[in-house]
Amino acid sequence: MMARALRLAGQAAYTTRPNPMVGCVIAHGEEIVGEGWHQRQGEPHAEVLALQAAGSRARGATVYATLEPCAHTGRTGPCAEALVASGVARVVAAMRDPFPQVDGAGFERLRGAGIAVESGLMEAQARALNVGFLSRIERGRPWVRVKLACSLDGRTAMANGDSKWISGEAARADVMHWRARAGAILTGAGTVLADDPSLTVRFDQPREFVPPLRVVLDPGLATVARGKVREGDAPTLYLHAPDAKPPRDLVADRAAVPVKGGMFDLAAVLALLAQREINEVHVETGATLAGALLKAGLVDEVLLYIAPVLLGDTARPLFGGLGFTEMAQRLRMTIVETRHVGDDLRLLLRPQA
Amino acid sequence: MMARALRLAGQAAYTTRPNPMVGCVIAHGEEIVGEGWHQRQGEPHAEVLALQAAGSRARGATVYATLEPCAHTGRTGPCAEALVASGVARVVAAMRDPFPQVDGAGFERLRGAGIAVESGLMEAQARALNVGFLSRIERGRPWVRVKLACSLDGRTAMANGDSKWISGEAARADVMHWRARAGAILTGAGTVLADDPSLTVRFDQPREFVPPLRVVLDPGLATVARGKVREGDAPTLYLHAPDAKPPRDLVADRAAVPVKGGMFDLAAVLALLAQREINEVHVETGATLAGALLKAGLVDEVLLYIAPVLLGDTARPLFGGLGFTEMAQRLRMTIVETRHVGDDLRLLLRPQA
Repeated sequence: MMARALRLAGQAAYTTRPNPMVGCVIAHGEEIVGEGWHQRQGEPHAEVLALQAAGSRARGATVYATLEPCAHTGRTGPCAEALVASGVARVVAAMRDPFPQVDGAGFERLRGAGIAVESGLMEAQARALNVGFLSRIERGRPWVRVKLACSLDGRTAMANGDSKWISGEAARADVMHWRARAGAILTGAGTVLADDPSLTVRFDQPREFVPPLRVVLDPGLATVARGKVREGDAPTLYLHAPDAKPPRDLVADRAAVPVKGGMFDLAAVLALLAQREINEVHVETGATLAGALLKAGLVDEVLLYIAPVLLGDTARPLFGGLGFTEMAQRLRMTIVETRHVGDDLRLLLRPQA
Repeated sequence: MMARALRLAGQAAYTTRPNPMVGCVIAHGEEIVGEGWHQRQGEPHAEVLALQAAGSRARGATVYATLEPCAHTGRTGPCAEALVASGVARVVAAMRDPFPQVDGAGFERLRGAGIAVESGLMEAQARALNVGFLSRIERGRPWVRVKLACSLDGRTAMANGDSKWISGEAARADVMHWRARAGAILTGAGTVLADDPSLTVRFDQPREFVPPLRVVLDPGLATVARGKVREGDAPTLYLHAPDAKPPRDLVADRAAVPVKGGMFDLAAVLALLAQREINEVHVETGATLAGALLKAGLVDEVLLYIAPVLLGDTARPLFGGLGFTEMAQRLRMTIVETRHVGDDLRLLLRPQA
């Protein structure tokens, strides 16, 4: 039942931001009497939808929820109240909701009404589902996933900057799904100038999604008058140095971020994005910014597409500026997942602590 | 039956060189009455062993052989004669033996004696099994497999040359199996000086094998007085430039190879190894020699261990001297196999024609 609730929750991966994905199944024993998932911010929560579907059959049932039911009135009423009113006998949650306005208060309300409450069933999977939301609430910064495409010899572009196309069509289509689940797509002014990416989500098949915010790190606001990154339906945010002079006619959203030693304070960039309720940041950029994020310990995950080609030792490196001179300095990662995507290999990696 | 014969043949991967691996199953319908495989040069062939096991039950049986039975008297008598004498009814071979002294003569002898002969069952698998033997006979050069270990960012060593240890223990143990099946392990003088490898086969569990020939490309014979590559039970061959002056007390085997523009003629190196009946060459060397072999189109397979670490952009590259400046020049490869070996990822790659 919880596995099913988790699958339901995941259906809203591209739409529920900044809210967490939540799924709910209501059952009597093996028989499911209602289910639902939270689709979009402002729309009903998973528990409410599942209760609606169950109707009077909710009475005496067990509720499986991937997250602690909310106890506060936000854009919708508190789910804990609705559950109490429905007469359910037992609530099994995958995890407590660390969101300050919930954080155990949902469980408390249920227990207070005599409902049996358990928490922790498939908690690891539930945490993985909302890794971005949890990062924002618990660490005050988004989950940072750096997407890179390289050759077998670890090169991302020729020396002349040409990187079209290292990875294949299937890999490029796959990237769209990762973009769509992110609240923001982060890039640097250098990438805007060199590659002019649009950084929008483009699916082959129609699929509902909320366009992620495109964020350009541009210290001097040098790129605000150019680039596809300003076009299309998705919003764009320019982050600049405090002393940058914004053009008078600039209509795009912008914010100043502290600069340290000529480089953006990347932790401050992420804190700002968390304040803007960004759960997951998808980074598509060159070796310099990717290397700087990695060196600052701000990369949670690397999504690496390895194309079965060799570009040679004069081509551009994967991460710049790591500055390792001894083997002992090497950065160890864990391969979380390996998959073939078209002709390419896709690795999901996490830096080891 | 043929799949079984192929599996039997493969048991001699580390011992049968320079002969091909051959397996044989003799059956009446579903019932196997005898089987065998060729274990070592000079020892009985697979068909003879299978006939011995079958005894009088060979009469009227079908013989499944992974290679055309031999028709010539080499170190052992011709298998075709033995099959005729045994009274088998039918011979199914996976492939014709391109070896000049066989090359259809085995099939002819069998057919001449009234035995039904078919060829081509699981031929692709049979060719893959003896890829080295076939390369030597058909192309006049060994099958060349370059083994490399690199980081996620495609680096094989730190700038200071330190490469111990990029890949893990499981990967290093796995390499032993690839060394053991090769007739020769090729390296360069630079690797001998920098890493001092022994290039021997060392198994954790006792396992029979014929020690591969260690071949050092050393233009000036500068390394003949040093290095573990001279030690142990395996033979060592130094290949040098025609004008090199061998030390008077040099006892190791050596041979001169033409040099073109300061570099060994690598095609001549491989031709020489084929003359010495080397089927598979396992290359363990640095980026320069690996890159030169690749650039010369002499690499058939790359065995790449990717360790989940980052070494940074100042570390040493995978292949040197490819000299690509445009994306269109990139060298495309096919991923033949992907496997996790310990914490590392092992890719078997073939350059696309």
